[in-house]
Amino acid sequence: VPKIVDHETRRQELAGAVWRVIRRDGLDGASVRAVAREAGWSPSALRHYFPSQSELLAAAIGEVTARVDARMGDFRTRASADVESVLHELLPLDDERRAENEVWLAFSARAMVDPDLRTLHREVDAALHRVCEWAVAEITEISGKATKDFNGSVEADRLHALMDGLALHAALDAEYTEERLKKTLSEHLRSLTL
Amino acid sequence: VPKIVDHETRRQELAGAVWRVIRRDGLDGASVRAVAREAGWSPSALRHYFPSQSELLAAAIGEVTARVDARMGDFRTRASADVESVLHELLPLDDERRAENEVWLAFSARAMVDPDLRTLHREVDAALHRVCEWAVAEITEISGKATKDFNGSVEADRLHALMDGLALHAALDAEYTEERLKKTLSEHLRSLTL
Repeated sequence: VPKIVDHETRRQELAGAVWRVIRRDGLDGASVRAVAREAGWSPSALRHYFPSQSELLAAAIGEVTARVDARMGDFRTRASADVESVLHELLPLDDERRAENEVWLAFSARAMVDPDLRTLHREVDAALHRVCEWAVAEITEISGKATKDFNGSVEADRLHALMDGLALHAALDAEYTEERLKKTLSEHLRSLTL
Repeated sequence: VPKIVDHETRRQELAGAVWRVIRRDGLDGASVRAVAREAGWSPSALRHYFPSQSELLAAAIGEVTARVDARMGDFRTRASADVESVLHELLPLDDERRAENEVWLAFSARAMVDPDLRTLHREVDAALHRVCEWAVAEITEISGKATKDFNGSVEADRLHALMDGLALHAALDAEYTEERLKKTLSEHLRSLTL
């Protein structure tokens, strides 16, 4: 009986190996060779799944989005009171989220100079933007502010920029503690209701 | 007469070459070899000034901060009415500032995995944070809000995160136009006075 290769399962296994290498050695360490070693594959077998380092990074980002999705569930069905905790899933508040954040930022930096990664970056970023749009809409619906002098599109941009800026600072400065990140987000959300 | 080598002038010349290579080929292209070629030096002569790629990047960041400083002047002496235009110097609103932004983000990503760059990153980031602290203090002084329910330290974190988040989005998404960046910042500053 010929062995049936489950392509998708292999891809996921390999994405897990990419993830472990990036966490351990940083993005620069995630060469096809290093990931092959981690997975116990030959580099040439690995290239069958990921022909280039760009595709390795794309797989790592797939891993990040799968993790975030699994934690958040369908945020659109969440209660307005949950807005803050949904947004917490996107901030580096524990080791898992810190690793996701570092991979995301490294991927973003690479996407600036690698057109192959730009489209995927845009897609993930658009998904994050939709979470921010939802959050702003929910909060202002509670506060009734949406009917007043309020621009939802600008507010979504503002929240999204705040989230990514906090994530960037947290990745580089240990003084951005979990408490400080939460406090800053919390004040921002509160200001939307004033 | 022995030739007097003006070390500092040479360093500045070389920093200019680093800057040009990064703008043209991205950070990954800024090897010691490539910068030597750009400057018309031998790689070994270049290594006398910049022994490693980390030192090249540090020089590029020195170039960015010198440019920003030259444009901003001493922001502390600026009038409160100038707060927004001072902050504009830090956003990627034209080609020069876009290049500075890309170098800064690439440097930030590298600093995540390169301890040699972390200290310099921290210093520059602290300087940016002081600009945000000044901006928040000036604005709230005008509005008289500082005396009320207002936390200057949280507001500086919020403004700083917003600025860096906007810069990150602008570097990766052409839909973040100059107008959109200015509008978002402007709304944020306005919200501080309400």
